[in-house]
Amino acid sequence: MQAGSPGVDQAALRGAIDGLRETGALFYQRGWSVGTSSNYSVVLRREPLELLVTASGKDKGRLGPADFVRINAQGQPVMADQPKSSAETLLHVAAAEQPGVGSVLHTHSVWATLLSDLFYDDGGFEIEGYEMLKGLSGVATHETRTWVTIFDNTQDIPRLAAEVRRRLADAERPLGHGYLIRRHGLYTWGRDLDEARRHVEIFEFLFECLGRRLTLAADRPAAAR
Amino acid sequence: MQAGSPGVDQAALRGAIDGLRETGALFYQRGWSVGTSSNYSVVLRREPLELLVTASGKDKGRLGPADFVRINAQGQPVMADQPKSSAETLLHVAAAEQPGVGSVLHTHSVWATLLSDLFYDDGGFEIEGYEMLKGLSGVATHETRTWVTIFDNTQDIPRLAAEVRRRLADAERPLGHGYLIRRHGLYTWGRDLDEARRHVEIFEFLFECLGRRLTLAADRPAAAR
Amino acid sequence: MQAGSPGVDQAALRGAIDGLRETGALFYQRGWSVGTSSNYSVVLRREPLELLVTASGKDKGRLGPADFVRINAQGQPVMADQPKSSAETLLHVAAAEQPGVGSVLHTHSVWATLLSDLFYDDGGFEIEGYEMLKGLSGVATHETRTWVTIFDNTQDIPRLAAEVRRRLADAERPLGHGYLIRRHGLYTWGRDLDEARRHVEIFEFLFECLGRRLTLAADRPAAAR
Amino acid sequence: MQAGSPGVDQAALRGAIDGLRETGALFYQRGWSVGTSSNYSVVLRREPLELLVTASGKDKGRLGPADFVRINAQGQPVMADQPKSSAETLLHVAAAEQPGVGSVLHTHSVWATLLSDLFYDDGGFEIEGYEMLKGLSGVATHETRTWVTIFDNTQDIPRLAAEVRRRLADAERPLGHGYLIRRHGLYTWGRDLDEARRHVEIFEFLFECLGRRLTLAADRPAAAR
Repeated sequence: MQAGSPGVDQAALRGAIDGLRETGALFYQRGWSVGTSSNYSVVLRREPLELLVTASGKDKGRLGPADFVRINAQGQPVMADQPKSSAETLLHVAAAEQPGVGSVLHTHSVWATLLSDLFYDDGGFEIEGYEMLKGLSGVATHETRTWVTIFDNTQDIPRLAAEVRRRLADAERPLGHGYLIRRHGLYTWGRDLDEARRHVEIFEFLFECLGRRLTLAADRPAAAR
Repeated sequence: MQAGSPGVDQAALRGAIDGLRETGALFYQRGWSVGTSSNYSVVLRREPLELLVTASGKDKGRLGPADFVRINAQGQPVMADQPKSSAETLLHVAAAEQPGVGSVLHTHSVWATLLSDLFYDDGGFEIEGYEMLKGLSGVATHETRTWVTIFDNTQDIPRLAAEVRRRLADAERPLGHGYLIRRHGLYTWGRDLDEARRHVEIFEFLFECLGRRLTLAADRPAAAR
Repeated sequence: MQAGSPGVDQAALRGAIDGLRETGALFYQRGWSVGTSSNYSVVLRREPLELLVTASGKDKGRLGPADFVRINAQGQPVMADQPKSSAETLLHVAAAEQPGVGSVLHTHSVWATLLSDLFYDDGGFEIEGYEMLKGLSGVATHETRTWVTIFDNTQDIPRLAAEVRRRLADAERPLGHGYLIRRHGLYTWGRDLDEARRHVEIFEFLFECLGRRLTLAADRPAAAR
Repeated sequence: MQAGSPGVDQAALRGAIDGLRETGALFYQRGWSVGTSSNYSVVLRREPLELLVTASGKDKGRLGPADFVRINAQGQPVMADQPKSSAETLLHVAAAEQPGVGSVLHTHSVWATLLSDLFYDDGGFEIEGYEMLKGLSGVATHETRTWVTIFDNTQDIPRLAAEVRRRLADAERPLGHGYLIRRHGLYTWGRDLDEARRHVEIFEFLFECLGRRLTLAADRPAAAR
């Protein structure tokens, strides 16, 4: 990112870059962003909407300070001479349009990939009764349930972004705190990068719980106790 | 923590803060304290009882020096201008009231979550015959067994703290070195932070052994040998 | 590597050594190159072909600057006083002979070992429909499938290298982006070290997905959701 | 260890301490030496036999320079004012008595614990046909098999040490490169610390392969491919 970019506080810009680089190193180490998969964004300003997004195809474990793109509400670069933005930029925009969202994170974990495939025919799956759910923003008790919607994977990102936008605005069938794309990965968000990171950690923990639960034998043999 | 806090040795206070910060970084990396879950405490003095507890909602992987609260035997802050303490502070107090306890650790791992759910209807589960049991304080042989009690999860922490206190004092059905809360996590303790950490590591190792044992096919196919 | 080696740019040589040392530390940490297993190479020049290959039997987690060998198209050392090259050097040559290949990586992971054994009788296995496949060079959509060929393990490396060379040139049954050797490990490559590393990460991710999928119970019990 | 210890080269002593401290940090991180479990030794001299062994009950992830004991062929301390040596010191002596052995490592992993229990009634299990076996000292082909003997766990270490010594000398039923103790862990060794470490890594890799193989469904469902 060049110094002197228009309309955005430079300290905030540097903070966003540093935060996403650290997030990438962490998520890579966790195995949630390997093979140059995943993309992350931070809202730089809201009117007009502008996002800082990871550039396409970068190794998330060692993001450099120039591996980012500033894009507008149409997913288009706001400055010249930037690296190519990810094809999925529009999904970041769709999530960031919600009031109070300051960061959007997309990750590719093994457990998310497995569950997104296994429960695809059901349209999603429910997570209920786990204490860890209380870490999702606005949840105050474990006596809650959240439905994780699974969208089919597609290369037609504009169409998927429109569908996500519709569901985010659908009071009857809200998306909640995140969603999965089949055999692909998780999208979640938060009021800032820290909250979005917390949501990734919570979803990944719960996906691993649900996934490992499915590996346990139906009957508990006495010998195993 | 401000310098000059009353009634507690400042070097001991700084040592407790440093020790819990390091413990948080380690347990986060292990996956036992992600998503801002978990809370940890160290006994600062015994008469009257005062604990240093992690503040509510902090990222355990990167605890700052101010992310702690000093609380008394009622779970109330002993100083002004402290961050909010965890709702589960009373469970730390209940464990710390035992003679010789200097630290209490609460963690949220995947295996603990799974076992706490799977064996909930039995009220707990037994661990027997593992060499690793010898690492629990006061155990001198692997020819031992320990029962891990599982309490139901609740948002009524005072009631749960009273129940835990009753069981800690119950010579017929003692809690041993720790207990689980259903779909929530582990509480354990030790005479100091090092011993409490060792107990966490031992319980987590044994939970993983029991959990993975349940993933093995009942019959050992010849091809797998 | 001594300074002043003939015919190769010294900065490129140092860059290759540094890159492979970092790759080794990373793959060791991932568990893909433990027990001194694995070997890695970078193409130093093409005419005549010269490769920098890890020396035989070195700990990949702590490769030293001298733990490498420069070899020619026959797998023979091009300089005196080098450490012994790996017996599998000829497999690196076979892959590096392809136009546009700048690096070859061979790793030994648990999941690759399991799948290479389980699907050996089928000659390989197909991976289809995963978003992560788009990270393989030249793949632009998840609506793709790749066949992973499994060769039998052998100590007759020249014979296996000849077989690999034949298959790499076989338009009917191409090897794609990599192959497995039974109960042994993965060979993959890329136009440079970064791309080869990305291919390792993608294959390992997909192997883990396929392997873990096989650990899930055939029926999804309601209790697990 | 105090400077000026008799009869042993001080540089060698410091090297042994540094090497074991680094090994502990690594094995702790891998999960093979948690909860203060495990113990490690290096042969300081052979005539008379003297070993440097980790002191009892130390956290292997953060061994200090004084967390070691020098012991003789009877497992007794050779110097005053040393910390307590592990109860299992005699098992280190039994392995170190073999000609050419320079280091003995004992670890406690989850997979070793599971396999040592599952195959106990068979007296052990065979590992055959894995390329990784070639990393065991003296093995030149994957077309090999090694039998891993499982001894019952006991608190009577002198008796177990005598039994191990008998089997090490038994040409008909040799112990090979290491053995397991039931629900306890692995003992292996090598001509120096590096080789012993390599043997730990290889055994742990193979134990994980065998253990995970047992978690795979007997039939490969088409959907998983």
